Amino acid sequence: MVDIATRVYNHKWKIDPIVRSLIDTDFYKLLMCQSVFRNKPDTEVTFSLINRTTEIPLAELIDEGELREQLDHIRSLSLSRGESTWLRGNMFYGKRQMFRPDFMEWFENLQLPPYHLERVGDQYELTFEGQWPEVMLWEIPALSVLMELRGRAVLAPMGRFELQVLYARAMTKLWEKIERLRPHSGLRIADFGTRRRHSFLWQDWCVQAMMEGLGERFVGTSNCLIAMRREVEAIGTNAHELPMVYAALAGTDAALARAPYEVLADWHEEHEGNLRIILPDTFGSEAFFRNAPDWLAGWTGVRIDSGDPVEGAETAIRWWESRGEDPRQKLVIFSDGLDDDVIVDLYRRFAGRVRVSFGWGTLLTNDFRGLVDGDRLAPFSLVCKASAANGRPTVKLSDNPEKAMGPPEEIVRYKRVFGVGEQVRREVVV
Amino acid sequence: MVDIATRVYNHKWKIDPIVRSLIDTDFYKLLMCQSVFRNKPDTEVTFSLINRTTEIPLAELIDEGELREQLDHIRSLSLSRGESTWLRGNMFYGKRQMFRPDFMEWFENLQLPPYHLERVGDQYELTFEGQWPEVMLWEIPALSVLMELRGRAVLAPMGRFELQVLYARAMTKLWEKIERLRPHSGLRIADFGTRRRHSFLWQDWCVQAMMEGLGERFVGTSNCLIAMRREVEAIGTNAHELPMVYAALAGTDAALARAPYEVLADWHEEHEGNLRIILPDTFGSEAFFRNAPDWLAGWTGVRIDSGDPVEGAETAIRWWESRGEDPRQKLVIFSDGLDDDVIVDLYRRFAGRVRVSFGWGTLLTNDFRGLVDGDRLAPFSLVCKASAANGRPTVKLSDNPEKAMGPPEEIVRYKRVFGVGEQVRREVVV
Repeated sequence: MVDIATRVYNHKWKIDPIVRSLIDTDFYKLLMCQSVFRNKPDTEVTFSLINRTTEIPLAELIDEGELREQLDHIRSLSLSRGESTWLRGNMFYGKRQMFRPDFMEWFENLQLPPYHLERVGDQYELTFEGQWPEVMLWEIPALSVLMELRGRAVLAPMGRFELQVLYARAMTKLWEKIERLRPHSGLRIADFGTRRRHSFLWQDWCVQAMMEGLGERFVGTSNCLIAMRREVEAIGTNAHELPMVYAALAGTDAALARAPYEVLADWHEEHEGNLRIILPDTFGSEAFFRNAPDWLAGWTGVRIDSGDPVEGAETAIRWWESRGEDPRQKLVIFSDGLDDDVIVDLYRRFAGRVRVSFGWGTLLTNDFRGLVDGDRLAPFSLVCKASAANGRPTVKLSDNPEKAMGPPEEIVRYKRVFGVGEQVRREVVV
Repeated sequence: MVDIATRVYNHKWKIDPIVRSLIDTDFYKLLMCQSVFRNKPDTEVTFSLINRTTEIPLAELIDEGELREQLDHIRSLSLSRGESTWLRGNMFYGKRQMFRPDFMEWFENLQLPPYHLERVGDQYELTFEGQWPEVMLWEIPALSVLMELRGRAVLAPMGRFELQVLYARAMTKLWEKIERLRPHSGLRIADFGTRRRHSFLWQDWCVQAMMEGLGERFVGTSNCLIAMRREVEAIGTNAHELPMVYAALAGTDAALARAPYEVLADWHEEHEGNLRIILPDTFGSEAFFRNAPDWLAGWTGVRIDSGDPVEGAETAIRWWESRGEDPRQKLVIFSDGLDDDVIVDLYRRFAGRVRVSFGWGTLLTNDFRGLVDGDRLAPFSLVCKASAANGRPTVKLSDNPEKAMGPPEEIVRYKRVFGVGEQVRREVVV
């Protein structure tokens, strides 16, 4: 029986909003936001959207008016009472009151700042400028909106049953991955797929399928809204934007060399246990470990987010051993380019040597490869990064030169300051 | 938003009825019923359920109480006003008032007669006795109920997402068949899958997927309820039960030899055009054609329902040619053991030589092969046949001795009377 009121209500919407909540974002964004709010609140930053897959002509696929409507809708959002209660009262990583009252009060009154959108050729230039704690919260919703609008453009001409079969195929594809993961009872996998998901509803389906299909092997999701609704753990620690901005703010080469560790010194004061996870690759992992202060070796683990993951983990293990730490007590979180086969390989290789965990992203929540003609739903490499801080450009080196960003002369300087040598190029899938 | 009233209403049902309408049956059942109602209304018949796949222990899988509830529910059904209006007013095979007022009046007042159910070992004995026009209408709902209850037994322990993925896989499987059929623009395919469908909702989905995916290549469904609701053609002509019962009623060998043609003489008076389709295999096709009267060569086509389909069609073509008919004007309907590959093969072979059409049954509406462990959802060979008429056993020879039925001594007599020699055994898939 049709619920007439619901139907009429649904048809009153001018748009079908893609992002409907300020906490439809990654948990680490909120952790980092609180840290920035405390330590660097007045930093002026610019975040820029970059489509690394330039063959995909976003501006031809996505109507500018529709994109503006979606972005405007996000600016109209504010934290709901239930969301606020959850953030204030829920236990995250075993800790209550993770978010301090002053931060919560600020967040409860937040609306996202304006955006700048311009079409350049067949791409969009989308940038956000302003105070770091506000601007940084644009990253995930901006990516979600662009990914989902691109999907909608591809899906628009499809028939009803064709669509149902498309999702049937995607469901089967994910379920078969889950079936291949299930036999490995020691696996610990989290959903890290918000930023490049096919759509919100699809990510929500993926999380629920993982809950049923993987049981305790599925440890939670980076998406706060889904974590709240599905009553699973919110997962995440910190990202490259912290060292990138701290580094850009450094006035001298010596300050630059210290910047990555200052980030973690601030983090050390705020967090403990499983939140003390090193992300070593921003300016090259080898150099990071070489120059790391001793107290960092006491941290719980590392996240490997670029380069060869085996090499990355071996580097961390060698570093722990050289500092007298027992790697078997340490946590290695893999989060780059994962799919079920890579997960099983890495798990087999490192289980027993370290504690292993996986942050499974794009190929969890957006593996529509091969499902439509011309592969027009395949995920692509869209990022939204801090590109400047207080008027100075940011730089990322990464363990894969394909993922490096920043002005060429600055890249040269950073490589010199951090002592980064030759790096191996790896294809960036997503 | 939950429609509370709908939810409460749904939970008030004591059972989830499998058959909810008297016209959730094959169209040819109603055509034959009208013919029987006119020509042989007082014949006493017995219909018996036979599970030819004895490895499937129906009585262990299906609770007897649940089975009785479903059968009792069917006995509580009567024709609704809308169903009656559709049968009276709809155009079938280009003709209005296909169903005569006296038949419709009888049908509007019909409730199905009692059933006899007994557990014997791990199987059920399910029989129906009484006047032919009433009893014959049990065949399709009885089969649907048993097939669907068996499916429900297998599905009962499965999780929510596991179930969704099961149907996702089944949808994908059918859609891939549709995609392989689509390039052949001259194909004409009807759904003949009511009797061994996975479930009503699944058959309804299959029909709609065919409508979208095959366009005009999909010509309709044998299921009256779905034809009415989805506004497609109801398809079907006649079946083995007519010659089987006519033959059983014959008092002498000479009368027996005439019986299959008397059936068609009665049909000839009632129907024309595409409803004049010969089903030659009840007592062997070769013999049928050899002894057929000339006027039958003027009929529109034949339906090939057992034996080697290529041989069956070639036999018909040779017969038409021998009677001076042009095969290119004739219709050959294939309806035995079809799947997309068989359909394409037969189409390629006969298109241009005759008009070709397909009645696609079990592997359209119940291809769950390979989708659960132990293949416990694979279709199986369940039939419900007239086993006696006025106290005399019925016989079917078919063009495949695996499909023969009746007492052995009667099979011998029929083979002698009809002059049937050696036959080739073919595995009965479904």
